[in-house]
Amino acid sequence: MLYPSKRIEDAVNQLASLPGIGRKTALRLALSLLKRDASRVKDFSEALMLMKENTCFCSRCHNISDTNLCLVCSAPSRDQSLICVVADFRDVIAIENTHSFYGLYHVLGGLISPMDGIGPSDLNIESLMERLRTEEYAEIIFALAPTPDGDTTNFFIYRKIKDYNIRISSLARGIAIGEDIEYTDQATLGKSLQNRILYESSLAAK
Amino acid sequence: MLYPSKRIEDAVNQLASLPGIGRKTALRLALSLLKRDASRVKDFSEALMLMKENTCFCSRCHNISDTNLCLVCSAPSRDQSLICVVADFRDVIAIENTHSFYGLYHVLGGLISPMDGIGPSDLNIESLMERLRTEEYAEIIFALAPTPDGDTTNFFIYRKIKDYNIRISSLARGIAIGEDIEYTDQATLGKSLQNRILYESSLAAK
Repeated sequence: MLYPSKRIEDAVNQLASLPGIGRKTALRLALSLLKRDASRVKDFSEALMLMKENTCFCSRCHNISDTNLCLVCSAPSRDQSLICVVADFRDVIAIENTHSFYGLYHVLGGLISPMDGIGPSDLNIESLMERLRTEEYAEIIFALAPTPDGDTTNFFIYRKIKDYNIRISSLARGIAIGEDIEYTDQATLGKSLQNRILYESSLAAK
Repeated sequence: MLYPSKRIEDAVNQLASLPGIGRKTALRLALSLLKRDASRVKDFSEALMLMKENTCFCSRCHNISDTNLCLVCSAPSRDQSLICVVADFRDVIAIENTHSFYGLYHVLGGLISPMDGIGPSDLNIESLMERLRTEEYAEIIFALAPTPDGDTTNFFIYRKIKDYNIRISSLARGIAIGEDIEYTDQATLGKSLQNRILYESSLAAK
């Protein structure tokens, strides 16, 4: 595509580098920014730069944070006896938005993946052990993806902590809300039969 | 939605202000920026700011430009006897990308729209007259949208220049390439019959 201005072309190239944004959409976004007041464009680009410069990782749970201790770790209202292990801080956002979990998190920063050369020492597993040794938890919840990498990571941590006096649980696997039985994959349907729950407890959960 | 960091929330709010970007997409874009090196995020946000700060309008044709005279006006290879009147510099980009026009442009900066309170004096019409008086053109092409506002603007300019020694043309109206006859609207189909072209000339255009 031809652009009347090198500056617009640069901006389009940058916007088109974002996931899911093609060059036509990037041009539309660039022109919509161009129509704004200079101060609003400044606010826009500063917000992106500030996000990158000023966010850090929580020193306790490795969640992304503006401060040394993240919002979850520093909230006294959170249940300090529950710890939920996730791969990525995006999983924290997803779980927080369910409003169903009021404990603490531990962000591993990835999953063990021999294919990608990611071993246990590349993840925040040692600091998880340190937390389990020094803090008092009643339950640890594995909230890792049901993939080979996720299962490997779950099992690696499980072997390290199975002798601790702590309840070890993982997210329920089953049919998604609103899903059709006939279109559910075999593995999931099989799991949901094995792990069937009492009908009365499914009523109570509503 | 809940965000672990005020900075991320700010960035998401800014990204979600772009057209067609919802909050979920904005979060995905923000996190993709967050994963990049700081220098790349800096380049990204600087490109947007530089675009806003350093683009100006061509002093001759009012197209968007990095310099006083835009790329089209300053190219000696362009046909200096053809002038194409468009409403917006985005139309220039669209026409340039057809690779079918090698003349000059004049960007009006909008269309006459009594409903929106936009009159002829709000547009770059006087500078178009000045160009037609001082420069030598063989043909002026109206490339304005086939809407009431576009037709009004066309007619307004036509009345001012109809006594000049210049060929006045407008974009062909007809059936779009690949369109079905049965789904073409009445007005367009009617126009395409009135303005039918010799079959041999349609062959030559291929």
